[in-house]
Amino acid sequence: MKLTVLGCYAATPRTFTNPTSQVLEINNEVLLIDCGEGTQVELRRNKVKFGKIKHIFISHLHGDHFYGLIGLISTFMLLNRKTELHIYGPKGIKEIITLQLKFSNSWTGYPLYFHELSSHEPEVILTTRKVTVETIPLKHRIYCNGYLFREQPKPRKLLMEEVEKYDIDVAYYKGIKKGKDAVLADGNVIPNEKLTADPDPPKSYAFCSDTAYHPGMVDQLHKVTALYHEATFLEEHAYLAAPTGHSTAREAAAIAREASVEHLVLGHFSTRYETILPFKAEAEKIFSPVQLADDGKSFNF
Amino acid sequence: MKLTVLGCYAATPRTFTNPTSQVLEINNEVLLIDCGEGTQVELRRNKVKFGKIKHIFISHLHGDHFYGLIGLISTFMLLNRKTELHIYGPKGIKEIITLQLKFSNSWTGYPLYFHELSSHEPEVILTTRKVTVETIPLKHRIYCNGYLFREQPKPRKLLMEEVEKYDIDVAYYKGIKKGKDAVLADGNVIPNEKLTADPDPPKSYAFCSDTAYHPGMVDQLHKVTALYHEATFLEEHAYLAAPTGHSTAREAAAIAREASVEHLVLGHFSTRYETILPFKAEAEKIFSPVQLADDGKSFNF
Repeated sequence: MKLTVLGCYAATPRTFTNPTSQVLEINNEVLLIDCGEGTQVELRRNKVKFGKIKHIFISHLHGDHFYGLIGLISTFMLLNRKTELHIYGPKGIKEIITLQLKFSNSWTGYPLYFHELSSHEPEVILTTRKVTVETIPLKHRIYCNGYLFREQPKPRKLLMEEVEKYDIDVAYYKGIKKGKDAVLADGNVIPNEKLTADPDPPKSYAFCSDTAYHPGMVDQLHKVTALYHEATFLEEHAYLAAPTGHSTAREAAAIAREASVEHLVLGHFSTRYETILPFKAEAEKIFSPVQLADDGKSFNF
Repeated sequence: MKLTVLGCYAATPRTFTNPTSQVLEINNEVLLIDCGEGTQVELRRNKVKFGKIKHIFISHLHGDHFYGLIGLISTFMLLNRKTELHIYGPKGIKEIITLQLKFSNSWTGYPLYFHELSSHEPEVILTTRKVTVETIPLKHRIYCNGYLFREQPKPRKLLMEEVEKYDIDVAYYKGIKKGKDAVLADGNVIPNEKLTADPDPPKSYAFCSDTAYHPGMVDQLHKVTALYHEATFLEEHAYLAAPTGHSTAREAAAIAREASVEHLVLGHFSTRYETILPFKAEAEKIFSPVQLADDGKSFNF
């Protein structure tokens, strides 16, 4: 599972910081999460193939999380895309995008589907053979969802030495990987546990931005492989966090600890800070390991 | 009069080319023309003070000319702008912008005025003490205007040696600069032409993008100081120009010649070309002087 951060700074794009967008490669799916202004350029800079993106997840309708979406949709059109594209985001996103396509008289030549969200409870919004995606209702100034991405459970691992010892035909492998016992030509039954080992546990990634400190999501995040949690402020500016619907690094770490996640990645830093290093120090007092997102930085989990 | 090109390439923003946007400084007014995605970052890169921009002119509602507008408007808001902002552009632009502000629940704290255009005849849309701005109806796939910016006529130049010779009081200077004669204390009248010289002729700048070859605009462009005319294609791709509502370098030069403009600047180059130098060569066969726009390049006229 690989996370590429295209942008992870709050508010306005600047010459040296990008607003939120990231690419998650999980079980061979390529998923785009949020799409601030300039995302299409950052995708090019990070050599992400446009054609591989089939699903885009928008957390909320503040500009630093979606103003790049209309441009990306248009560019896909100019590049003659044919494969379908699915957009997940708050109610309103379809109207915003289609209004602009209407006035430019430029309808996409590819199927464009909107999946508008309005529930305040977690819901599964995508299930493919490779992943499931569910919403994580967040606590922000406007309706906002995080997203929880999980690999589908993997087949059991064949113990090839055992399988070959019993001379089992290849045709049975698929069933055995699903947990079936093997029935030999002589009628003998070899129990599955002799032929297979447990698969790697499915990996999972939770994207939580933007949100105030919100312990209500802890249960849903239980033991995820990696949690990206916004940390707009340091604790010294905690008085700004709650009223603006944002978190401090300490609060993000508290969520990570309560949810027993494996890795915590912090992002959505306010551009008021000259260096982001103190975010790591502050969070590590409570949880470990902590990593800091940064534009153009990749993480393998 | 100074023109700063923030972006001058057609279609999609890329890591090394920007879509259309430019800043015109004319008679101390700072005007923004078109606003493709990423314009706010290019404004910062070129150190244009955000607060000085009070008028933004959008040619048409194709994304490469206005997808950066909503982000710029939002950033002005985040930066706590108080001064008013005027947006000029095709009918529809107000709905597009306000819809997005509505869904983000972020109304601007500064007065935001929309001046929507729908006429197919030239019209004066702004008159200040410093400049007048009129539309130049263009010929494109969708409704599109160029803009003609003219300095207001300047006061006559005082010939200080003469003025001092007659010991004329400073209080009369303003009237004399407007063309009045001077009446001395002894009743003698000094005719204005003895005291003043003709002012510099007002400078003018015409922005014409996007447009197919459109000789109908030649009269309006007569003797402008500088004409920015799109040249999306070279003549070898003329077969693409007309159907897409674009021009070739040769066609742009033909307009410049017919209109007897002083300077021609070419831009809106298709990103299919590895170098833009042939645009200059092609245009110079017909008109001179020709200059090529480029991202980050400034011109003084």
